Amino acid sequence: MQFSSQVIEEATNALSSFPGIGKRTALRLVMHLIKRPEHEIVNIAGAILKLKTELHLCEECFNIADSETCDICTNTNRDSQTICVVEDFTDLMAIENTNQFLGTYFVLGGLIAPIDGIGPEQLNIEQLVSKVIKSEAKEIILALNTTVEGDTTLFYIAKILSPYKVKVSTISRGISVGAELEYADELTLGNSILNRIEYQY
Amino acid sequence: MQFSSQVIEEATNALSSFPGIGKRTALRLVMHLIKRPEHEIVNIAGAILKLKTELHLCEECFNIADSETCDICTNTNRDSQTICVVEDFTDLMAIENTNQFLGTYFVLGGLIAPIDGIGPEQLNIEQLVSKVIKSEAKEIILALNTTVEGDTTLFYIAKILSPYKVKVSTISRGISVGAELEYADELTLGNSILNRIEYQY
Repeated sequence: MQFSSQVIEEATNALSSFPGIGKRTALRLVMHLIKRPEHEIVNIAGAILKLKTELHLCEECFNIADSETCDICTNTNRDSQTICVVEDFTDLMAIENTNQFLGTYFVLGGLIAPIDGIGPEQLNIEQLVSKVIKSEAKEIILALNTTVEGDTTLFYIAKILSPYKVKVSTISRGISVGAELEYADELTLGNSILNRIEYQY
Repeated sequence: MQFSSQVIEEATNALSSFPGIGKRTALRLVMHLIKRPEHEIVNIAGAILKLKTELHLCEECFNIADSETCDICTNTNRDSQTICVVEDFTDLMAIENTNQFLGTYFVLGGLIAPIDGIGPEQLNIEQLVSKVIKSEAKEIILALNTTVEGDTTLFYIAKILSPYKVKVSTISRGISVGAELEYADELTLGNSILNRIEYQY
């Protein structure tokens, strides 16, 4: 692609560095931006810059926060002894959006993945153990992806936490709400029979 | 969608103002940005800001340029008496990328579209006439979309230019390279027979 303007070329290259955005889409976004009023452009650029200058990692749970401790950890209405362990901030947000969990979180910062060279020491597992001891946690809910990496991490954390008096649970796995059994994969369907739940009258 | 961080919410809202990018995709882009090094973030924000601070419209042809006159208009190797009229900058870029045109351009800034309230007076048509006179143009090539709006604009400009001694042409319309006749629409196929081209030995 040839550009007659270097400014447009730079902006297109910058936007095409985003995942899933190619040169053509980036150029379309740039053409959109050119037509917008100045304050909107300044807002967008400012919001992007703030991601580096104003974001912190919560000292308690490694959640992304605007201050040194996140809103969830400072909220005294939330149960600090029930801790939901998640891979990253997006998983935390997904659970928060269900409005079903009133405990606190702990962000691991990844999953154990030997193929990608990620071992337990690169994750916040040591800090999780300290937090379990310090907060006298009653239950640790492991809300991790149901992948090989997720299962490996789950197994590792459960083993590490076994000496402490803390209940370790995982989120339930089974057939999605609204799904048809006919199209469910065998592993999921098999597991959902083995881990069947007693009907509540 | 609930956000635990206002900075992330702002950035997500800013990015989801782009066409074709929803809240979820915007959040994915924000999460990508958070993981990138600082200089990359600064680059992206800077490139976006420059779109407002450093871009000009070429005084000669209304192309988007880094200076007051664009590279194409200042290039003395290009034929300033053969002018290709396009709707906007992206169409100009598309033609430039074919490497088949060595004349100059003129950007209309839109097409006549009464339904959207765009009349000839909102486009750079007066300036086109001045340019035709000033540059003693020999040929005006109208490279417009083959839509109702494109055809209306084409007809209007051809009529406006009729008093001047200038050849007016349009880009050829017909079957795309690589297309199968079977799947071509009737209008295009019909036109391609009416406007058939003599075989060149």
